[in-house]
Amino acid sequence: MNKSLRVGVIGAGYWGPNLVRNLSEVPGAEPVAVADLSEERLEAIRKRFPAVRTTTAHHELFDDRAIDAVCIATPVGTHRKLAEEAFAAGKHVFVEKPLAGTVSDAEAIVRAAERAGKTLMVGHTFVYNPAVVEVKRILDADGVGRVQYIDSQRVNLGLHQFDINVLWDLGPHDVSITLYWLGEEPEWIQATGACFVQPEIEDVVFLMIGFPSGAIAHAHLSWLAPTKLRTMTVIGSKKMVLYDDVQTVEKVKIYDQGVEKLSGEELRRSYRAGDIHSPRIPVTEALQIEMRHFIECVRDGKKPRSDGEAGLRVVRALEAGMRSLRTGGARVAYRPDAVRA
Amino acid sequence: MNKSLRVGVIGAGYWGPNLVRNLSEVPGAEPVAVADLSEERLEAIRKRFPAVRTTTAHHELFDDRAIDAVCIATPVGTHRKLAEEAFAAGKHVFVEKPLAGTVSDAEAIVRAAERAGKTLMVGHTFVYNPAVVEVKRILDADGVGRVQYIDSQRVNLGLHQFDINVLWDLGPHDVSITLYWLGEEPEWIQATGACFVQPEIEDVVFLMIGFPSGAIAHAHLSWLAPTKLRTMTVIGSKKMVLYDDVQTVEKVKIYDQGVEKLSGEELRRSYRAGDIHSPRIPVTEALQIEMRHFIECVRDGKKPRSDGEAGLRVVRALEAGMRSLRTGGARVAYRPDAVRA
Amino acid sequence: MNKSLRVGVIGAGYWGPNLVRNLSEVPGAEPVAVADLSEERLEAIRKRFPAVRTTTAHHELFDDRAIDAVCIATPVGTHRKLAEEAFAAGKHVFVEKPLAGTVSDAEAIVRAAERAGKTLMVGHTFVYNPAVVEVKRILDADGVGRVQYIDSQRVNLGLHQFDINVLWDLGPHDVSITLYWLGEEPEWIQATGACFVQPEIEDVVFLMIGFPSGAIAHAHLSWLAPTKLRTMTVIGSKKMVLYDDVQTVEKVKIYDQGVEKLSGEELRRSYRAGDIHSPRIPVTEALQIEMRHFIECVRDGKKPRSDGEAGLRVVRALEAGMRSLRTGGARVAYRPDAVRA
Amino acid sequence: MNKSLRVGVIGAGYWGPNLVRNLSEVPGAEPVAVADLSEERLEAIRKRFPAVRTTTAHHELFDDRAIDAVCIATPVGTHRKLAEEAFAAGKHVFVEKPLAGTVSDAEAIVRAAERAGKTLMVGHTFVYNPAVVEVKRILDADGVGRVQYIDSQRVNLGLHQFDINVLWDLGPHDVSITLYWLGEEPEWIQATGACFVQPEIEDVVFLMIGFPSGAIAHAHLSWLAPTKLRTMTVIGSKKMVLYDDVQTVEKVKIYDQGVEKLSGEELRRSYRAGDIHSPRIPVTEALQIEMRHFIECVRDGKKPRSDGEAGLRVVRALEAGMRSLRTGGARVAYRPDAVRA
Repeated sequence: MNKSLRVGVIGAGYWGPNLVRNLSEVPGAEPVAVADLSEERLEAIRKRFPAVRTTTAHHELFDDRAIDAVCIATPVGTHRKLAEEAFAAGKHVFVEKPLAGTVSDAEAIVRAAERAGKTLMVGHTFVYNPAVVEVKRILDADGVGRVQYIDSQRVNLGLHQFDINVLWDLGPHDVSITLYWLGEEPEWIQATGACFVQPEIEDVVFLMIGFPSGAIAHAHLSWLAPTKLRTMTVIGSKKMVLYDDVQTVEKVKIYDQGVEKLSGEELRRSYRAGDIHSPRIPVTEALQIEMRHFIECVRDGKKPRSDGEAGLRVVRALEAGMRSLRTGGARVAYRPDAVRA
Repeated sequence: MNKSLRVGVIGAGYWGPNLVRNLSEVPGAEPVAVADLSEERLEAIRKRFPAVRTTTAHHELFDDRAIDAVCIATPVGTHRKLAEEAFAAGKHVFVEKPLAGTVSDAEAIVRAAERAGKTLMVGHTFVYNPAVVEVKRILDADGVGRVQYIDSQRVNLGLHQFDINVLWDLGPHDVSITLYWLGEEPEWIQATGACFVQPEIEDVVFLMIGFPSGAIAHAHLSWLAPTKLRTMTVIGSKKMVLYDDVQTVEKVKIYDQGVEKLSGEELRRSYRAGDIHSPRIPVTEALQIEMRHFIECVRDGKKPRSDGEAGLRVVRALEAGMRSLRTGGARVAYRPDAVRA
Repeated sequence: MNKSLRVGVIGAGYWGPNLVRNLSEVPGAEPVAVADLSEERLEAIRKRFPAVRTTTAHHELFDDRAIDAVCIATPVGTHRKLAEEAFAAGKHVFVEKPLAGTVSDAEAIVRAAERAGKTLMVGHTFVYNPAVVEVKRILDADGVGRVQYIDSQRVNLGLHQFDINVLWDLGPHDVSITLYWLGEEPEWIQATGACFVQPEIEDVVFLMIGFPSGAIAHAHLSWLAPTKLRTMTVIGSKKMVLYDDVQTVEKVKIYDQGVEKLSGEELRRSYRAGDIHSPRIPVTEALQIEMRHFIECVRDGKKPRSDGEAGLRVVRALEAGMRSLRTGGARVAYRPDAVRA
Repeated sequence: MNKSLRVGVIGAGYWGPNLVRNLSEVPGAEPVAVADLSEERLEAIRKRFPAVRTTTAHHELFDDRAIDAVCIATPVGTHRKLAEEAFAAGKHVFVEKPLAGTVSDAEAIVRAAERAGKTLMVGHTFVYNPAVVEVKRILDADGVGRVQYIDSQRVNLGLHQFDINVLWDLGPHDVSITLYWLGEEPEWIQATGACFVQPEIEDVVFLMIGFPSGAIAHAHLSWLAPTKLRTMTVIGSKKMVLYDDVQTVEKVKIYDQGVEKLSGEELRRSYRAGDIHSPRIPVTEALQIEMRHFIECVRDGKKPRSDGEAGLRVVRALEAGMRSLRTGGARVAYRPDAVRA
């Protein structure tokens, strides 16, 4: 297939224009149309991308047979309906994260993609981030040993959402990265939080995920913090890895040290530090890598790294997190249905 | 009272020699005797402090009428018996943290002190740390607003204890500091952890404490970490305070920023950062300040900042944390008896 | 004057497109034409700014009576000729830094501006950088005391120029910032360097500038460094100020400490540290502030902060630096002619 | 030789007690006597080291035939006389840095050692610092390529000496480390400074040293700085090494990157960063390693790493630096006599 993928974008809020820009920069694709309910936003698109057609009627994109794929970058509550319509019209679909606001909606989207036999990819950009990919490579190379736990700090000041809480706002990143790194599905979820600024909207959540292997992942998610933190520490039985996305250099550090099983009478183990290695990380924008991956998957019929199933797993974890939150932090099953089965 | 306080020290392990050194440096006190079961440890004491008497029979210190006070720096399981004997012998007592391994032991020690009418102080050194005291001063000065939550990172590699878990090893610091700062008793406790290196000994624990005011405190306690972290972030409704004990300068930073209640239709709040101020912190050793305070309290009959009640509250929180740990992280009452009452 | 300033840009290399972008974003100006010898570069301009006219014949901009001002962003050797022509055609002129490659060329440009009675502004962007302006404010508010010395680290890896050395590449920043902060003209210059990568092109230079007040400024300029450093430390007799442009927060820190004159017999002075304060710095792009200033100066006939005289002073310092470099680092007069006078 | 080296220490100021402590801790040596003119200082020694004999008459140490070696830790002006007397009495001699205040005094001490056939070692502690030794190992392993230049920041607030300037106070560290790393003698020296706090006593000096290989070393030495800096950056033709003594971890970092010779028409080279590696550095105290080395050299008749010649080279560089300072920063020969020869 030599011709460019012709892509329509629905939603011109925060992510839409970024998608259009990247689609216009990567080879193999072409942004042809943008749909949004706001004329003002469409005007901004036209000014910046004169060659792109705009419309307030998103179904025009589905009706246009020259359009091969659509990117859905609208509020999460609209994802299911739009994705189902897009698949029904025979389009490949890229959906911004999270895939849906409920497990049943996410499952419906996955089923629609299967029925249509088209590509479904979810915009979990971080699993295309070069530093995250480098950590995955390090973990798979097995010098790190068994992953025992992952601790994440994802906090910053401001940018309070009014329709979703911090679990749904920042949590998709930690969940998608953790599932990508560990390659296993969660067993249980626990989430405790508090609403300090807006009633009923948690602005701080402590999320914990347990895995069948015994690994646990913990994330501090907050819109209330003096400085922006984006660190994830992976504790392996042999080495430890620190990923700090705020750094411009040394985003990833491997600590060649660890703790062996204790034996005998010794009261305390003394500190055993080792060499620290920081691999070079390419600086390519993750969103661009993600768009290239989408184009490649559509063209070659490959399964995306962040396919529908991956997106569904994230929604399952977040929905379970909400159940835990609503019960004051009790440990809940990742798949409650599976328990009943 | 012009004469020096004559002090005996029981236990010459890690803390004992530090207590002897500080007692010999501060005015108003004099370390006169050290008791320990190990002749080797006593030999080390004699070499370093030739003027100090040593014995393997700790009751000699109780029998010595010239001794005014004793410091108990032995394993936690022995605290109750030693403290009760000391009070019975009419001594003032300083007990290393935690006060006891169970609430009932801690209560017994507090009662013994009351009966004897003598000073009981618990070695929560951190509440004498100049940086911790400075944060207390900042919080009380009220520019910070209502404290919403406190997040603590207290992690490092190595020094695994074989008899207690990381909650009892590192947790007393976070609990004592938090109670000192907030000045209120906890309402509920939640703790989740895992045992990666030794069976049955948690080496990582996530502790959460809820307060009647609505404030919550969260602490990540771990013996498994690539680097040593000692940060506590206090999120106030008006300002935020960061206390980083690993720094040599700028241990405390006040962030003049915050988030006001949202109103209207606005989708997101933009970031509002402000000035950052880092007050000068005196560099006096906390243990020395603690010893001076003990001497002063004994001499003037004052209530110590870390008195028996304060030590008891820490034990209550830790014991509740153990109950939560054993039930997979369920939220438990800080005072289960109070619920029954 | 209500109508927008109509601006032509000559040179579409690195700075040209940035100037066009900022001119199209700020109110009161409009980029109308771009001239460059390269059709390829002009094509890039047309793609990004469809409304802007392009030409390979720069004199068309001078001949166009609808153009009020031109920005010259060409190699430094062409500045004099282009600026003289522009003034002769009655345009206001913005020249990228450095103003010229020799003092005599710089003087000629300044004279041409005076003759034409038009605005001449030099693109010393850093004196419009909000952090640099904040330091100026702090120094003028006089709590810092007398400035004793300024130490600058301006180093990074790569980006070796082939036509100019590191003194002319990075030096204009330190010289323009220092002269802006101190508000006095240099007395002497000293520069030592070495050519490690290319023959005859210094890639590392240590520059020192002496002032009549006794202040000295020292800068380490280098294209060979493991990490990018952009720090300037101002040592005042009462306080010290650290400006670190690499930081995203805490770009400016004021250290409330200092050293008083010694007296008596004391052998050593002990360290006296104090509070540290980091004022909030607005995040506006310096180039935009610079463009707004240019528009305002043209419109209101005001003298620009970085006017021709300021640009000339920088060229004087750099030319003196070259004389010192060529004589192995001897101290040379800033104004050799002044000595003869 | 199985018996311990019996050592006398002359001078009980800052370094003396540290020497006594280390001599009492390392195997193979024994501090037997301390001489000082101040009874107060001797009293402090007796209190801390009851077994050590003290005297105000230093010649008693020379007369005592049971003493094998003396450590001279007195003001620099007294080094020559004391060392000559010690060698005349047949002692091995350790002299604190710098070896002497003038080249002729340093030469006299070296000659006295040669005549006596005894060990002479100079207390350049930094060349025994594990991080400095690790950098030497890295440089010798040759992956770094040719050393092009070394930049050092050695600044801090306070501790102004009243008898010597910052060049003689902090400069010995940079000079001794640089000569140890490069293994070649300087060719020329340049030093510029200023006296801000005390008249005639430079509190800031910029020192530059040129070497026959083309390498240059630059050091910023200052008693006036907001924060303590102890960084030395080594720029090699293939790799770069950063040594930061203020860090507790990652004291040494190797940057796997560099710049190759340019060719062709390219205007600028793009940044080429690489992996960063931080080797584990043992935490042994440098002074203890130094004392062990002294004992070993005396016992086995080995040449110390910091022998008399090494100490003399440092004095030559500092004396040349003073000549340059006094002439306003002119470049002066490292060995002016050699020029005349």
